[in-house]
Amino acid sequence: MADRDTGTSSAGRGNAMWGGRFADGPSAIMREINASIPFDKALWRQDIAGSRAHVSMLAAQGILSAEDAQTIDDGLQAIAAEYERDGVPEDWDLEDIHMTVESRLTELVGPVAGRLHTARSRNDQVATDFKLWTREAIDEIDAGLAAVQAALVTRADEHAADIMPGFTHLQAAQPVTLGHHLMAYYEMLRRDRMRFASAKERLDECPLGAAALAGTGFDLDREATAKALGFARPTANSLDTVSDRDFAMDYLHAASIASIHLSRLAEEIIIWASQPFGFIRLPDSLSTGSSIMPQKKNPDAAELVRGHAGRIIGAATALSITMKGLPLAYAKDMQDDKPPVFEAHGLLVLSLASMEGMIAGAAFNTDRMLELASSGHATATDLADWLVREAGVPFREAHHITGAAVARADTKGCALAELTEEDLAAIDPRVTPQALSHLTLEGSVASRRSYGGTAPDRVREQVKAARDALRL
Amino acid sequence: MADRDTGTSSAGRGNAMWGGRFADGPSAIMREINASIPFDKALWRQDIAGSRAHVSMLAAQGILSAEDAQTIDDGLQAIAAEYERDGVPEDWDLEDIHMTVESRLTELVGPVAGRLHTARSRNDQVATDFKLWTREAIDEIDAGLAAVQAALVTRADEHAADIMPGFTHLQAAQPVTLGHHLMAYYEMLRRDRMRFASAKERLDECPLGAAALAGTGFDLDREATAKALGFARPTANSLDTVSDRDFAMDYLHAASIASIHLSRLAEEIIIWASQPFGFIRLPDSLSTGSSIMPQKKNPDAAELVRGHAGRIIGAATALSITMKGLPLAYAKDMQDDKPPVFEAHGLLVLSLASMEGMIAGAAFNTDRMLELASSGHATATDLADWLVREAGVPFREAHHITGAAVARADTKGCALAELTEEDLAAIDPRVTPQALSHLTLEGSVASRRSYGGTAPDRVREQVKAARDALRL
Amino acid sequence: MADRDTGTSSAGRGNAMWGGRFADGPSAIMREINASIPFDKALWRQDIAGSRAHVSMLAAQGILSAEDAQTIDDGLQAIAAEYERDGVPEDWDLEDIHMTVESRLTELVGPVAGRLHTARSRNDQVATDFKLWTREAIDEIDAGLAAVQAALVTRADEHAADIMPGFTHLQAAQPVTLGHHLMAYYEMLRRDRMRFASAKERLDECPLGAAALAGTGFDLDREATAKALGFARPTANSLDTVSDRDFAMDYLHAASIASIHLSRLAEEIIIWASQPFGFIRLPDSLSTGSSIMPQKKNPDAAELVRGHAGRIIGAATALSITMKGLPLAYAKDMQDDKPPVFEAHGLLVLSLASMEGMIAGAAFNTDRMLELASSGHATATDLADWLVREAGVPFREAHHITGAAVARADTKGCALAELTEEDLAAIDPRVTPQALSHLTLEGSVASRRSYGGTAPDRVREQVKAARDALRL
Amino acid sequence: MADRDTGTSSAGRGNAMWGGRFADGPSAIMREINASIPFDKALWRQDIAGSRAHVSMLAAQGILSAEDAQTIDDGLQAIAAEYERDGVPEDWDLEDIHMTVESRLTELVGPVAGRLHTARSRNDQVATDFKLWTREAIDEIDAGLAAVQAALVTRADEHAADIMPGFTHLQAAQPVTLGHHLMAYYEMLRRDRMRFASAKERLDECPLGAAALAGTGFDLDREATAKALGFARPTANSLDTVSDRDFAMDYLHAASIASIHLSRLAEEIIIWASQPFGFIRLPDSLSTGSSIMPQKKNPDAAELVRGHAGRIIGAATALSITMKGLPLAYAKDMQDDKPPVFEAHGLLVLSLASMEGMIAGAAFNTDRMLELASSGHATATDLADWLVREAGVPFREAHHITGAAVARADTKGCALAELTEEDLAAIDPRVTPQALSHLTLEGSVASRRSYGGTAPDRVREQVKAARDALRL
Repeated sequence: MADRDTGTSSAGRGNAMWGGRFADGPSAIMREINASIPFDKALWRQDIAGSRAHVSMLAAQGILSAEDAQTIDDGLQAIAAEYERDGVPEDWDLEDIHMTVESRLTELVGPVAGRLHTARSRNDQVATDFKLWTREAIDEIDAGLAAVQAALVTRADEHAADIMPGFTHLQAAQPVTLGHHLMAYYEMLRRDRMRFASAKERLDECPLGAAALAGTGFDLDREATAKALGFARPTANSLDTVSDRDFAMDYLHAASIASIHLSRLAEEIIIWASQPFGFIRLPDSLSTGSSIMPQKKNPDAAELVRGHAGRIIGAATALSITMKGLPLAYAKDMQDDKPPVFEAHGLLVLSLASMEGMIAGAAFNTDRMLELASSGHATATDLADWLVREAGVPFREAHHITGAAVARADTKGCALAELTEEDLAAIDPRVTPQALSHLTLEGSVASRRSYGGTAPDRVREQVKAARDALRL
Repeated sequence: MADRDTGTSSAGRGNAMWGGRFADGPSAIMREINASIPFDKALWRQDIAGSRAHVSMLAAQGILSAEDAQTIDDGLQAIAAEYERDGVPEDWDLEDIHMTVESRLTELVGPVAGRLHTARSRNDQVATDFKLWTREAIDEIDAGLAAVQAALVTRADEHAADIMPGFTHLQAAQPVTLGHHLMAYYEMLRRDRMRFASAKERLDECPLGAAALAGTGFDLDREATAKALGFARPTANSLDTVSDRDFAMDYLHAASIASIHLSRLAEEIIIWASQPFGFIRLPDSLSTGSSIMPQKKNPDAAELVRGHAGRIIGAATALSITMKGLPLAYAKDMQDDKPPVFEAHGLLVLSLASMEGMIAGAAFNTDRMLELASSGHATATDLADWLVREAGVPFREAHHITGAAVARADTKGCALAELTEEDLAAIDPRVTPQALSHLTLEGSVASRRSYGGTAPDRVREQVKAARDALRL
Repeated sequence: MADRDTGTSSAGRGNAMWGGRFADGPSAIMREINASIPFDKALWRQDIAGSRAHVSMLAAQGILSAEDAQTIDDGLQAIAAEYERDGVPEDWDLEDIHMTVESRLTELVGPVAGRLHTARSRNDQVATDFKLWTREAIDEIDAGLAAVQAALVTRADEHAADIMPGFTHLQAAQPVTLGHHLMAYYEMLRRDRMRFASAKERLDECPLGAAALAGTGFDLDREATAKALGFARPTANSLDTVSDRDFAMDYLHAASIASIHLSRLAEEIIIWASQPFGFIRLPDSLSTGSSIMPQKKNPDAAELVRGHAGRIIGAATALSITMKGLPLAYAKDMQDDKPPVFEAHGLLVLSLASMEGMIAGAAFNTDRMLELASSGHATATDLADWLVREAGVPFREAHHITGAAVARADTKGCALAELTEEDLAAIDPRVTPQALSHLTLEGSVASRRSYGGTAPDRVREQVKAARDALRL
Repeated sequence: MADRDTGTSSAGRGNAMWGGRFADGPSAIMREINASIPFDKALWRQDIAGSRAHVSMLAAQGILSAEDAQTIDDGLQAIAAEYERDGVPEDWDLEDIHMTVESRLTELVGPVAGRLHTARSRNDQVATDFKLWTREAIDEIDAGLAAVQAALVTRADEHAADIMPGFTHLQAAQPVTLGHHLMAYYEMLRRDRMRFASAKERLDECPLGAAALAGTGFDLDREATAKALGFARPTANSLDTVSDRDFAMDYLHAASIASIHLSRLAEEIIIWASQPFGFIRLPDSLSTGSSIMPQKKNPDAAELVRGHAGRIIGAATALSITMKGLPLAYAKDMQDDKPPVFEAHGLLVLSLASMEGMIAGAAFNTDRMLELASSGHATATDLADWLVREAGVPFREAHHITGAAVARADTKGCALAELTEEDLAAIDPRVTPQALSHLTLEGSVASRRSYGGTAPDRVREQVKAARDALRL
């Protein structure tokens, strides 16, 4: 991006640079701040596809002769081949991808190129291009989310019965299975895919034909261009059409939440990979070393996924700020819509790919997990539940009795299950030794059979349903 | 909110306050930072509804006796009546709405109250309460959006053929109708309602029964509680259930975009109400005066709507930040989920009501609009289009010819339609006097009949479709 | 806050509420959205102080008679006493704290009260009040930051030589001392205090006398009111004065960074308090239990501090959004300046107090820290450095040799210092057994004597300098 | 940036792209997400400067031989010349600018290059580089702010006595002078420069020598490197040093507020350039046309300045989010610090240059301003003030009397000054015809002589003080 390049290099040049810019005169500054081609060239495929649909419709409506339409279409295809091969040239004087394409078309086919812009404006053109791009971006993210889900499901299946400490407040709470824990992320990503899918539905209206803002007097067939470009229908109000960036904000919001989910998993990977936890070992291929400490193996990929969430949320915030308070219809502020979306998309694609690699390649240290699950009286709730179930004690009272048992075990430095008959009697007569026999990790986990619970067979049910949903 | 109160008053007390707080000892600080009752008391209806559904299910499953269940249910209904009448007491020692209700229940029905918390935790309880609240909030917003839509449609119908200058870059671009302009906002709000509706669909899973994080060993019927509370189904993974605040972020994102739409309309009202524009006069009841300038009539309501968008976007950002990077399962950070949602909701409800009042009550000065639509050569595009259509000139060339005509008119200080035959001949022989006869505002507007265009009959079509959709 | 209250309770009332509001008619909505008294009553002390300074100056300049001035001043003092005793009444019809005070003054002293508003406007009045409030808020935060610094320094002194693993990427990197680690936060808070201090300097200009926007024709002595209110000078441009909220944004930015620092420390406390780390035990008075798991002791205060950072950053974002793009001079959007600042301030004050309590009251498990510092070959860098220093090996090569030694130790499952002479010979002849004798934790830590390094005497130097700076 | 490129182009390639990436295996993903060289190459000057200072200090301390130091320094200078000429090569395997330089150094001077990394780490190295870059960026911004100030002052001087309507709520409030209005922005930018200056002071501590996190055992002279690089002193705590990005957040916060100021001025330019206002005409060189509407001249530069503020605030938010909750010391998330700063800087530099051009080149239509200043009873406050001053009426009562006069003038459709003696008598006997003679625009403006007021001589005082401060 122009301003990016400027920024990054200009600091090095100091005030001379500043003076230098000003010496170029206002038009040089204008060229630079105005040009979007450094970033909107990413839309070249969409721009050409939109133009081809437009020209084909103009011909069908008799607004363009069949011959002119063919000439223009041939020219557009030739340009596509050029860009595919050589990339898009970046000439600031041509401002944006639309003028860049039209200018090249004029070189290739002559003045007839000037007929392409009939009954359209850059305002509806850019809205169309960007919607098409965003729709494809959503598909790409959906595939990436599905790939992470598949990795989660595979690993959850392997570890459906492996016990780990379940945490709340990062304190050992109750034993759960690793499979259950991994499937929690499957659920988050399932909602992410729903969210992207509904964003895609809301953008399913084609802007082409709104022209500058008021519609046009040419007898267009907007249904036809909408259909040709894969949209469900044309947009219903031309002023709204050229002023609307809801679809970009929808993308960014969905991307924000997805990145938050990934950042939570990344945080866990980082904590789990620390020496004191020792729950996970990442593949060497997704770790890095230190330039100074030869023994280091760092979970950089997880940290970058976590860090990228900050930038993705920042991008969503940026576009919201830019759109707030803009009067209708198109305003040039809206040119600042694409950099945040492009940046967020790149970061999210990379985050998904990295997370898929980490989940698929991680080695889980289930022995260490089991060892830690035993500490912290994690089955205390089971004792309270036993009192409710077997001794008819109200839960609140059972909770207090169990609290006393925990305190006694702490004082003695033993596990709950190691309390003696005397200990129990001193706490409450209703706590019998039989109760203690229920406090194993395996028993605790297996008993949590409520729907959505951590019992291995419940987890396997979730895994099976997920495999079906993913068609694995 | 505790911290709000503290903050606002403490600055006035200066350092003494600080010292005072510390002198209270750590537990006083803990009580204050920990208590959520100052804001989560707003959830009391949902909390009692959830408890009643839970206790009824426990009885149906034989986990609670029918008698105990009845006692508890009677107690809960008594509490609801108390709160409805007297409000919810705010005792920081009881921390939150859940403990506040349970504590009162114990006072009313004795130790049997302790059986209510069987097979649940505050973690699934608060998720249930907050989801129920958010679902109702969405319904309230939907009604508010529909009300603004209805006001827009009514006014658009009145002004379907009244001509105003259409702006891009706040520069006169092409004439449009006021009805068309107002209907652009109808479209935005239509997407808002879709967005809220899809957020509602994603939250349609009941958390109750996830317990602390692992599910429970009691034989629950989660389908039953889900159904009783109006959810489509129970959540599928208990760890995810207590860690999930997607529904709150979804609400905030939808609220952000809705507030951005309102802020754009507010910006236009403010600009239109300025003396140089003079397009609109707000009802006195939605304007305010000045404490110093006796002649002032300020569009405060519109400004507040615009300003509130900043706070609503800020609230959305806040919750995203808080959730980012949290490991599973519940963490106390998540207690910071409610203030942003409550604040944003209050601001949005008020913004919608204010906007409905402004749209319904505004007097549009259509004479002034028409007067301004004539300036700025707003029909120049029509001349270019005429050249394409009638003289077969490629659009790009027609654009250049028209540019020359505009320049000549500017030089002469006249309107395009006032150019003489000689003027035209000097510009391009293909521009005949007949062309100029097409450059009236009415002709321009009437001609823009492409789907979604500004032609009055097109606008009336949009209005009719909107009336049908709104069942007006 | 009005909208807060509305929001939180209205969802419970559903659509009926919405209809109800509308039935009240536009003026009821206007009253509600317009009234700032629900939150700006927090400014009452500042408002009365500003009025007293103004009236005294008016008298000195002969604009008011001495008698009138005395009457008004007596009235203002009486109001202050009332508010101190009974709080500020909240009447939405009086809109804000300025009208509330003036209205009460009129009740108390009659029409002469109307002379108070001579040569001022609510625009300069609110800017003055809010600046005064912010200045005091900065002082309160400075005291809170100093208190946390004092707690850090005290604990750092105790633990200046206690060894813990230093982490990068949450991986054991090099041994450091706990004192050194705590002093890192002292530095962050030192910069916070500098940041708040410079914010205070920038706000040191008194708005009073700017009037509505243009200044006034009365012969004011703005130097006098500035001085009376403790400002360095009056503001220099009246249009800027009533449009400026830089001081509020400065406060929020400084608060954001301070809250980020606190959130980092909170994150460490939470990780350190987990069973696998076991580095820290928080005082019971700053922990909480679970409603379902009797054994839990959760670091809620630390989590809330971490969570609050999200809301504070959100508040900073909110005000930036609201101010962006506002034309001069005062706009009602600016009424949305206070809630974010008040909220952030309350949260930060509470976060500081909680953090002070946690640091002062935490029990550090230095045995566990030492135990973990031994794992992970944390002194590998010392071996590389030894090779550079004693054997003249270029660092990059020394890094590779040490990497090989680490790999060998890993293969053998031993510590670096336990490698045999044969092991070393196989790696590189320059690594002698003498090298290994340098790899103790104590030796490593003691050797890092570069300025700012972790050597205990260096830490004690830092502690001493900090004590001096804090005047402890 | 890698991820940007990926993102922008990958959407076009659809799912194939995704599959393609995965087929590359995890290490390809890691290479891509891990590499910072695509953006941190912007730091090459700073990196080489830091290395030269480091090597010179190592030699002075006897840690490196003079000969080795000379060889390394020669090599570094050769690399600088290469990069100046050819740009920095971008090899993802070398990860970042530090490894890129060191790798090239090894090619040029052989294994002795390996001695450069003695007693430092990439952690202190990148902190040093980035601080140096930020310091220069601040200088560049300061020059840009000063240039805009100079343009403002020049135009303010020209228009010190030209009358325009002063607005509050975008409603005509009181007449002010254009010079006064422009000087309001001078004040905002003055605070911006103070803010950047204090950010620069806070970053004035050199990170070099903190090494990875713990300091080093080599006998460094950190004062020497600090001095050589132009810092006031070395940082005081090595753990803090490598974990700190306050300076980047300070930069972003200062940039946010500056961009908000520019966005406010941009908003005014956009409104003023609209046909109904007609206050300003921008130079052609800073305007653009329309691809469809030949008559358009759009204030694109102003709109882009306003839009960029959204992205700059978004960048500030992004880094705050990324830093929140990170434990010490360095974490890879912090690699996400540079893109937001680089982006914001580029946008701000360009915004300042554009604004300077717009202010310097704008043609102000002072006739139109004067014409509009007469409407809207803008001198009503002067009548109220006259009543206070000349007739001893309390201001509040005078305000009411004036309100009645305004209402009467509105009813009659005349200006206040055109009310007849009879009109006045009917309103209040104290309003004499003499009063009306004071209600001219010139009289009103000239009378507002309070310090900071809009009277032309006051404005000229402000201009003179500004010229002195700017040394113009």
